[in-house]
Amino acid sequence: MGDRTMGNLILYGAILVALLAFAYAAWLYLWVKRQPCENRKIIKATGLIRAGARTFLRKEYAVLARFAGVAAVLIFVFLPKPIWQGEIVHNIWMVVAYIFGTVFSAIAGKIGLEVATIANGRSAEAAKKGIAPSFMAGFRGGAVMGMAVVGASLLGVTLVYLLTKDATTILGFSFGASSLALFAKAGGGIFTKTADISADLVGKVELGIPEDDPRNPAVIADNVGDNVGDVAGMGADLFDSNVASMAAALVMGSALGGNNVDMVFTFAALGLLASIIGVMTARIGEKGSPTKALNSSTYVTTAAFAVLTAATTYLFQFPWRIWGASIIGLAVGVIIGITTDYFTDDSKKPVHYVANASKTGPAFTILSGFSYGLLSVFPAMIGIGVAAFSAYKLCEPLGGIEYALFGISMAAVGMLSIVGMIVSNDAYGPIVDNARGLAEMGDLGEEVLAITDELDSAGNTVKAVTKGFAIAAAGLTVIALLGAFMSEVNTAAAELGIAGIQSFDIMNPMVFFGLLVGAAVPAVFSAMLMLGVDRNAQRLVAEIHRQFNEIIGLKEGKEGVEPEYDKCIEIATDGALKELVPAGLMAIIATFVVGFIGGVQAIGGFLCGNIISGLLLALFMSNSGGLWDNAKKYIESGHEGGKGSDAHKAAVVGDTVGDPFKDTAGPSINTQITVVSLMASLMSTLFLTISIF
Amino acid sequence: MGDRTMGNLILYGAILVALLAFAYAAWLYLWVKRQPCENRKIIKATGLIRAGARTFLRKEYAVLARFAGVAAVLIFVFLPKPIWQGEIVHNIWMVVAYIFGTVFSAIAGKIGLEVATIANGRSAEAAKKGIAPSFMAGFRGGAVMGMAVVGASLLGVTLVYLLTKDATTILGFSFGASSLALFAKAGGGIFTKTADISADLVGKVELGIPEDDPRNPAVIADNVGDNVGDVAGMGADLFDSNVASMAAALVMGSALGGNNVDMVFTFAALGLLASIIGVMTARIGEKGSPTKALNSSTYVTTAAFAVLTAATTYLFQFPWRIWGASIIGLAVGVIIGITTDYFTDDSKKPVHYVANASKTGPAFTILSGFSYGLLSVFPAMIGIGVAAFSAYKLCEPLGGIEYALFGISMAAVGMLSIVGMIVSNDAYGPIVDNARGLAEMGDLGEEVLAITDELDSAGNTVKAVTKGFAIAAAGLTVIALLGAFMSEVNTAAAELGIAGIQSFDIMNPMVFFGLLVGAAVPAVFSAMLMLGVDRNAQRLVAEIHRQFNEIIGLKEGKEGVEPEYDKCIEIATDGALKELVPAGLMAIIATFVVGFIGGVQAIGGFLCGNIISGLLLALFMSNSGGLWDNAKKYIESGHEGGKGSDAHKAAVVGDTVGDPFKDTAGPSINTQITVVSLMASLMSTLFLTISIF
Repeated sequence: MGDRTMGNLILYGAILVALLAFAYAAWLYLWVKRQPCENRKIIKATGLIRAGARTFLRKEYAVLARFAGVAAVLIFVFLPKPIWQGEIVHNIWMVVAYIFGTVFSAIAGKIGLEVATIANGRSAEAAKKGIAPSFMAGFRGGAVMGMAVVGASLLGVTLVYLLTKDATTILGFSFGASSLALFAKAGGGIFTKTADISADLVGKVELGIPEDDPRNPAVIADNVGDNVGDVAGMGADLFDSNVASMAAALVMGSALGGNNVDMVFTFAALGLLASIIGVMTARIGEKGSPTKALNSSTYVTTAAFAVLTAATTYLFQFPWRIWGASIIGLAVGVIIGITTDYFTDDSKKPVHYVANASKTGPAFTILSGFSYGLLSVFPAMIGIGVAAFSAYKLCEPLGGIEYALFGISMAAVGMLSIVGMIVSNDAYGPIVDNARGLAEMGDLGEEVLAITDELDSAGNTVKAVTKGFAIAAAGLTVIALLGAFMSEVNTAAAELGIAGIQSFDIMNPMVFFGLLVGAAVPAVFSAMLMLGVDRNAQRLVAEIHRQFNEIIGLKEGKEGVEPEYDKCIEIATDGALKELVPAGLMAIIATFVVGFIGGVQAIGGFLCGNIISGLLLALFMSNSGGLWDNAKKYIESGHEGGKGSDAHKAAVVGDTVGDPFKDTAGPSINTQITVVSLMASLMSTLFLTISIF
Repeated sequence: MGDRTMGNLILYGAILVALLAFAYAAWLYLWVKRQPCENRKIIKATGLIRAGARTFLRKEYAVLARFAGVAAVLIFVFLPKPIWQGEIVHNIWMVVAYIFGTVFSAIAGKIGLEVATIANGRSAEAAKKGIAPSFMAGFRGGAVMGMAVVGASLLGVTLVYLLTKDATTILGFSFGASSLALFAKAGGGIFTKTADISADLVGKVELGIPEDDPRNPAVIADNVGDNVGDVAGMGADLFDSNVASMAAALVMGSALGGNNVDMVFTFAALGLLASIIGVMTARIGEKGSPTKALNSSTYVTTAAFAVLTAATTYLFQFPWRIWGASIIGLAVGVIIGITTDYFTDDSKKPVHYVANASKTGPAFTILSGFSYGLLSVFPAMIGIGVAAFSAYKLCEPLGGIEYALFGISMAAVGMLSIVGMIVSNDAYGPIVDNARGLAEMGDLGEEVLAITDELDSAGNTVKAVTKGFAIAAAGLTVIALLGAFMSEVNTAAAELGIAGIQSFDIMNPMVFFGLLVGAAVPAVFSAMLMLGVDRNAQRLVAEIHRQFNEIIGLKEGKEGVEPEYDKCIEIATDGALKELVPAGLMAIIATFVVGFIGGVQAIGGFLCGNIISGLLLALFMSNSGGLWDNAKKYIESGHEGGKGSDAHKAAVVGDTVGDPFKDTAGPSINTQITVVSLMASLMSTLFLTISIF
């Protein structure tokens, strides 16, 4: 069998696995839909949530379509080379790939959102029959999203490669996915925290009514937020990371030749297959722990990936060192997830310390949570460093620096191999969070609430781990993209007949300048998003006040009186869309400016500074946010004075600060880094030829 | 006249200027001492403050002496080369220089502290006669510190160079100053914020008694804290930066030969001379603004430095390009100070925004202040990048990368040239802050309080600017130290007969690993310090509660009943000393571990990561802390509901969070970066010869 035939067979195989994932997703979707949902209040509420989520997504996609349109025109004119310099067909393919990337990502998000807003009510109702059926409804709903995201990313990348056989075009696909994710994550993040904070502030703090009380005009918006921020946003984020890791590996693998490209597709397809197996094995007994169930399916996926890839490495005679690199990536991803868990788990010291410090007042809640958040950065940064270094050294003997960098990119592919499982777990969280709210709105009673509370708490624990994982994966991916950038620059330089680059030297003042500016960008980016939440929440709070003042009987809960839920959704949506654009544009424009001033050397430094400070801030913000959230819940479960105590009030302040940390700014930084890295690679020819210094 | 003779003359000239600074300091000291201080309550309180400050310093120096003893032994055995490999006389000189560095820094701190605790009472009493005499007492007291710090650093560096003619030994002197500063800044910072937070928490929040009420057992500790943290600590910090910038310039200048060393000493001496002129011109009219008076003397110093250095450059035929580099440094330092001011000035948007957001509750105070703090990083990082890049490009034509890096180091020398003036302004702040407290304790009446309030507020404004300046200067200095490190490595490599290094390539996995770990260190370091403040404050709060419970009549303010002030000072001191050691050791040990694992390449990355994340965190923490402080004061001056309103309560939470940000963690990071950079240079031979990879 010829190498080319074999390569094509592997591509068809990858497409087959992607279709299998879609088929499985369809089966899961139908299973979820078959579960009973009869409570009229719940049906009504889920209807409102679904309608709200659809409204948000429609408006968001309308904004993004305009952005993508402009970007497509620019890409057509300038990428991979200015249209008057290169062949027009390349530019056309690049535009097509870019649009494919945005559309695939959007579709995956849409599917996830649709099923999540069906599964939430099912999960709530199923809790009447016990924890097992309720868990299954939530988990399988989430798994639809997991399968859709990874299936779509694998299908998209494979199709583009099959049609063009050009790795640079894959970067265009990846850039499409990333630019959509940048806005989807930021927009969803702003929406969800606007609604959450405003609902809590007026409902719980000012009026003293319970969370999820249907009198609160923002309660539906809050539930919509869980879906658009955590389900659709996180899905777009991991879609993006997954595609970017494949793109980086393909750029370097195709430059190396041999069967390296085959290996990338094989490993990516096996990762999805392993995730399918993992999802299939998820089971929970009548008295079982949902956390254990979620974790055990993750371990099954990990083991399946290791075994399957080892078998194919043996069969197809791939280099064992590269296999080793991807296993290193996978192992480090799991380890970082576990250390993240230490800082946010309510049975560990940090949560206890912050809860205790809260007795002295909110300033101490903030200071101690902030400090532990900073500490939590250490193991993850070292872990990423060790993973990159080991993968490099392991693969260097295969053929120098090119193989070494390819090894790093395969470590990223390995780390992201289980992403189908990760997304499933991640989407489970907001579904059961919603189910808890619906159980409250549908008056399903204390017993049901206790079950949904347990499922929700498992969701929070798993979420902390998957967030650490997502950031680590993005970190390793962008390190690989730095390698891809260098490879692209050298390809472009060779074509232009000018000298390529061998290094980004810190002592080169252009690199150092880039480092400093690149490091500042994530700080500014996250500040802009958080100020966006702040401004947007002020608008929404004003609207909630207006409704309580103007709608007679609402505060008292008079029969038949209802708040104008959709007004709140509208305000939160419009505000979020207004706030998301400047932050995203700032990051993009900064890249342009640095590149056109300082050329490729400055961009190398810029990417590196961006990665380092981005990882630092993303890890710190996600972990301190999770820590504050769990410290509040720990106090609510009866410690340090319990609900209503001074410690609890202080912990609520911490939780409110932590909300935009962990759900808006922290995870959006991932995407910001990826977008900037992809832009750099795509524009390498431009930066090489047009720059001031 | 031979070059050598001329060089020696310049060294003698530098010594002369240093002695002149001491003489002027002595004159200022006697002037301050001659001012009347008759109020018995004030005499008593200043006596207690002085005694408390002395106790702290004695205990702190005892701890540091033990640390320095251990360090001295290690230096003797290993530096600059292991004793069995090199010449013992070098190691002896290195130890002597190291001990000199610690002793000179300690003496400068001690002098500043003594005069500050005299000037505070004088300034309070003088306020009875009007703002002008009160200002002069505070300013001249601060200027003693300014002159002592810069005089001692210039004298020390010149003496060591005169005796050894070896720039590497200057690094030893600088390391002595830095290691002392690391602990002095961290220890003082923990002490001052422990006392401040605890006094406020029990006094203002729990009991509702005014700030500086003599019934509060921690009130003296609070005033002691201002002196040991802001006067002695900040003095040690800037002593350290000043010496480090000279050391870096000398290492590179002496490697280049020519009259470059002369230029370093000339410019440093002229900077001190310019500061003397600036201090001499400080005047304030009867209705004058203290802020203007402080700023105008800074501008006088800046102008004097520019003119004097231009004249000598012409006279001694130094290269004009190098002169240009130092002027760039100076200009950028001033510009960064001004942009920092924007984010903390109470007439600008950020303070207004945070004050307004406080109406919605403490969570919004924190979120908005945090966001603006992150935004404030941007102009400063770009400014440092531009300064380094311009200095590099300006000096490159003189002779390649070596001259270019020397140019960066001279930009740092230029930026730090006005440090005498900066320290004077900086020490003025805590003196008038103390004076305000003493005026309250001495019942000097409302009019006097109004004057001391105005002086205090000017101190806060200037402090924000000088802090931005100090961080920027440290940033540029450590960039220069990175160059010095490379130069030291190459010298060592040449002696060992092995290949030197030409670059620190980001794509080298060892460098990248170093980058990631180095970036995490400042985060962990500041987290450890803040947790230290948190734990220490809990101990002190318990003691204050004990005194209010056990001492009968204290709470009611019964005549003759006094709290046990010294008990509080003791607890804050012992706690601070216990908490400061682990954080400092962590930074030092991390450097060892990275160096011995990854060698000089990993250390290059480590330093770079450390600089970048250190600058980011230091700028962010100092600025958001200053912003919260001023937002609180802005509300207290009658905006957004004024004192006692909900907005005020929220702003107090922000201020409490900001206290350890701006006075403990933020400014300590400077010193941490310098220590690590100096260690790297000193240990370059060791890292070259002994490392795992």
